[in-house]
Order: sequence, then C-alpha cells, then structure tokens
Amino acid sequence: MLIDKTLSQFLDELASNSPAPGGGSVAALAGAAGAALASMVCNLTIGKKKYAEVQDELKAVLDQTELLRKELTQLIDKDTEAFNSVMAAFGLPKATEQEQAARATAIQEATKAATLVPLSVMQTCEKALLHAKTVAQKGNKNSASDAGVAALMLQAGCAGAALNVRINLGGLNDPSFVEQVARESAEIAQKVERTTREVMSEVEKSFGGK
Amino acid sequence: MLIDKTLSQFLDELASNSPAPGGGSVAALAGAAGAALASMVCNLTIGKKKYAEVQDELKAVLDQTELLRKELTQLIDKDTEAFNSVMAAFGLPKATEQEQAARATAIQEATKAATLVPLSVMQTCEKALLHAKTVAQKGNKNSASDAGVAALMLQAGCAGAALNVRINLGGLNDPSFVEQVARESAEIAQKVERTTREVMSEVEKSFGGK
Repeated sequence: MLIDKTLSQFLDELASNSPAPGGGSVAALAGAAGAALASMVCNLTIGKKKYAEVQDELKAVLDQTELLRKELTQLIDKDTEAFNSVMAAFGLPKATEQEQAARATAIQEATKAATLVPLSVMQTCEKALLHAKTVAQKGNKNSASDAGVAALMLQAGCAGAALNVRINLGGLNDPSFVEQVARESAEIAQKVERTTREVMSEVEKSFGGK
Repeated sequence: MLIDKTLSQFLDELASNSPAPGGGSVAALAGAAGAALASMVCNLTIGKKKYAEVQDELKAVLDQTELLRKELTQLIDKDTEAFNSVMAAFGLPKATEQEQAARATAIQEATKAATLVPLSVMQTCEKALLHAKTVAQKGNKNSASDAGVAALMLQAGCAGAALNVRINLGGLNDPSFVEQVARESAEIAQKVERTTREVMSEVEKSFGGK
C-alpha cells in the first residue's frame, strides 16, 4: 500500500513514468496532512491553562479531525486503486461486438467509481476545513502558522481532487450523473474557497502586527 | 529522518502533541509532491510519438524538476531540524546576565536560520512552478489534471512556507534582515499566484469543453 511506503519512496514512485500514483492520491495526501496539522494544533492547545476555556470544544474537534485524517489517508490508496480499475477496464478484450459492449460498460462503471473517490476527498477536505477554522480561532496562538498551513493543504487537496473529478466526468456518458457530480463539486469548491479565506483572516489576527 | 518514515507514520507524528514536524515540513512536502508530479508528466510525455516535437524540451525540464524535487525533499527534514534548533536555544540556561545574553544571541541566530529554510522552500517552489507551466502547456494532455495538481501543490507549499517565514520574522530584532526577507517573500508570493493562474488556464485549455 502507498501509505506504507516512505515519503522518499512515495515521491520516487510519483515522479516515475507510471501514471499511478498521480494527482488524485497527492490531493488525498494533502488533505490528510491538513487534517493532521489541525489535530496537532488541538493537541498543542488541550491541557494548557491559558486555553482551559476551549478545552472541551477542541477535544471534540480533535475527535473529528482524527476521523477525517483517517478517511483522507485511506483515500490516498483508494484513488490509485480506482485509477488502476479504469486502466484494467480499458485493457479488456474488444474482438467481438459482445466484448466491445462489455468493455464499454466496464469502463463507464470504473470511471464512475474513480470519480466518486476524488469527490469524497473534496467532501472530507471541506469538513476538515470547518474544523481548521475553529482551530485557527480558538487554538494555541503559537501554532497559528500551522493552522494556516492546515487550511492551505485542505484547500489544495480539495482543488486537486476537483481536477480529478472533472477529468473523469469527461469520459462519462450518463448526463444526470455528470450534472449531479459537477454541481456538487462546484458547490464544495466555492464553500472551500470562502472558508479558506476566513481561516487565513483568523491566522492574520493571531499574527497581530507581525 | 522524516523522509524515511512511511506516509502513515509521518501523518501520525504530524498530528501528535509535538510541535515538530509541523507546517514548515508539510509545506516542503507539498512542494516536493508538486515537483514530482511535474516530473511524472514529463516522463509520460517523453518517448511518445505524438509529442516528439517537445521531447528535448521536456527532457531538460525533467532534469530541473528532479533537481528541485530533491531539494524540496531535503527541506522537509531541514525545516524540522531548524525548528528544533530554535527550541534548543530557548532551552539554554538564563541564570546569569552573561547566560541571558548568550541565550538571546543563540535564539536570534537559530530563528534567522529557521526563517531561511521556508524562504528556500518558497524559492524552490517558484522555480518548479515555472517548469510546471511548461509541462501544462506542452506535456501529455491525458495528464492535464496531474499538471494542475502539481501547480496547486507548489502554490500551497509556497504559501505555507510564507506563513512560516512570517511567524519567524516576528521573533527577530534585526530590522534590515526582517525587511529584506519580508520583501523577497512577498515578491515570490505574488509571482507564484500569477504563475499558478497561468498554469490553471493551460489545464483548462487541455480539458477543452469537458
């Protein structure tokens, strides 16, 4: 599994002449790193006297960011698996009309599945970003830059996943599926842009005049 | 070293209640993943008949993106090491006036060094992003989304590093160093925003009507 490779090995495989892992898995990794940084700021806040008032709230946030981090970590491998299934469908025999029809159906099904993985990355990044906002507002001010990087990674993860949703939708011939997923993707992208701006403005406040 | 940990271990350490690794190392990792994706698109273009005309150009780009990927990969650990040096300086004895003066000097020096690491991440991401633009313009159109994710990761890496430059500058009392680094950081950030928009517009063209 990709998540059992070292950073160094993962980057080597990414750069290689194999299309997988590619941008989809990187988007999920960015999201997972963003969620992990949000968890870190929670952990650096909980138990500190100065932040006693927000302790319970950040404990609840931590439970959520850890859950979302695990989901995003799993999506690193799921994206590459879904891509490989699309490739396998393209590799099916196409000698007879029957084989051609079965292959076409398999490609459509695998591409739909491969579209839903980055859509899931987008949904999960959006949820984690709302928690990153709470973390930026209420978490340890010494970790303001970490809360900011958390938001930047969740934003980039979401935007990267959106490109993968889009390239997959281009290969589908089910207009109602395409329309529905495109609409949801656009809605999430818009919300994520807005929330990221809000987090960055909180980070700015924590920096003060610096 | 961080780059010898598995993705799974790295994310666990990131989320933990230790401030290092933190946002600075994540910014370098995002940059390294972006450079790796740019390399991948080069590798998926070189040797393809359809792209014979750009073969030499993309081979030269690949040499550069691989170099920049290695630099960014090293910066993952360098950032955490620099942060640990700042923490070590803060931990120096401060019983006598002499100790206090030596500690203050050590903190300033370590903080300067810790500022130059994310500045270097910014510079390296900016260089890699210019190559990602060439890749998006001339590389394999089937990998358009990967070129896009490359740019998004380099942008997020640069913006994340900028936050780390800024939080470190806040602790320095050398106005000329602070001014110079703040100016360079702002200039890079501006150029990176522009180049990212240009890359995304190239990716958009490759998607065509999709």
